[in-house]
Amino acid sequence: MEFQKTEKNTVKRGAKKASYNKKEIYALLDASEICNIAFNVDSFPYVQPINFGRTGNKIFVHGSLKNRMTNALIEQGTACLSVFHLDAMKLSKSAFHHSVDFRSVVVMGNVRELKTNKEKLVGLKSIVNHFVPNRWEHCRAPNDSELNATKVLEIEIDSASAKIASSPVSDKKDDEKLDFWSGKIPIKTVSEYPITKKDVNENIEIPKHVLDFYEERKNGF
Amino acid sequence: MEFQKTEKNTVKRGAKKASYNKKEIYALLDASEICNIAFNVDSFPYVQPINFGRTGNKIFVHGSLKNRMTNALIEQGTACLSVFHLDAMKLSKSAFHHSVDFRSVVVMGNVRELKTNKEKLVGLKSIVNHFVPNRWEHCRAPNDSELNATKVLEIEIDSASAKIASSPVSDKKDDEKLDFWSGKIPIKTVSEYPITKKDVNENIEIPKHVLDFYEERKNGF
Repeated sequence: MEFQKTEKNTVKRGAKKASYNKKEIYALLDASEICNIAFNVDSFPYVQPINFGRTGNKIFVHGSLKNRMTNALIEQGTACLSVFHLDAMKLSKSAFHHSVDFRSVVVMGNVRELKTNKEKLVGLKSIVNHFVPNRWEHCRAPNDSELNATKVLEIEIDSASAKIASSPVSDKKDDEKLDFWSGKIPIKTVSEYPITKKDVNENIEIPKHVLDFYEERKNGF
Repeated sequence: MEFQKTEKNTVKRGAKKASYNKKEIYALLDASEICNIAFNVDSFPYVQPINFGRTGNKIFVHGSLKNRMTNALIEQGTACLSVFHLDAMKLSKSAFHHSVDFRSVVVMGNVRELKTNKEKLVGLKSIVNHFVPNRWEHCRAPNDSELNATKVLEIEIDSASAKIASSPVSDKKDDEKLDFWSGKIPIKTVSEYPITKKDVNENIEIPKHVLDFYEERKNGF
């Protein structure tokens, strides 16, 4: 299944690197703890990093009651967010052709504030389980006073595109013979072994969902 | 030296984690290959990841002549961009207190298109040397036809703030005694050893500026 190509999400520069495949886009979103989201305040476009959840075609974000971003998104009714994974620095022989290997997604969606506690819990569960899969069952669920202090937004994805670059360093024919060094510096984002907090009961071992997360990401994600 | 606190850049949520220190903000910008930048097209705020340079209090970005982002920023005359480094996942005993250790910067600035080739070269040099320090001297400089195919923007930083979280996992007093596992999963972004491109003259070794970059970032940045 693919997202429809529209004026908003169609990749023009580097169109060959573009993907509109839902499965691929969802996987890249799920491999990212943080997205960057844009919002207008007095017609000035801000960008802010924020954690999020994804369940099906919906993204969830949350913020405190007076949060500037959350309230701007509710007022706006739409949202654009991006995730980005850097995989390599590509150093060409000409300044102009330096680039990176990367995997990125840009998503456009429609925003709805979740008003009932039941709905809010659905959104927060998505956020916590996006943070570390299966975490929700292994911690205390939010209580009423916590839910009342939080706005939870659902962003139904309307259109999206991914851009994936994974290719050799390139130079123009004339530049290939130049006596400059050229090559890649691979970049990885890795998780290290979990560190238990001191106040955890000494009979409690690091649970499977935490070790699974570590194992899956220890060599990069 | 500090950036002035204004309505736009003052951190309200987690104000204790905020910094307005120029040196600290510049260092976090320099440790990031990619920023996310916001821009309006038909009043819709988009966000897009992009590489950039920084020299003094100026940030430089570039794009092809018809690039939607570059042209929107020129029209807008202002820009907001962010960088984000994820350092740890913090798993608390309550769903509500999960968080991350991170270092982020949000910058607001005034946009000016660089029109002459001399000015464009200043911007592109900043971008290439931000990519890998001292790279500019070790590759072919852009020629006139490349410069003519590129718009280069200077963003003079008007206000900025950093937010730095590096603290133990926290829970409410009542939750500390719960029998859930709690702790941190450290996250690092590391560079791996440079890989020379096949067409590089075999007498050319990996140069110092490339090895310096690798050494500085092999254990995380």
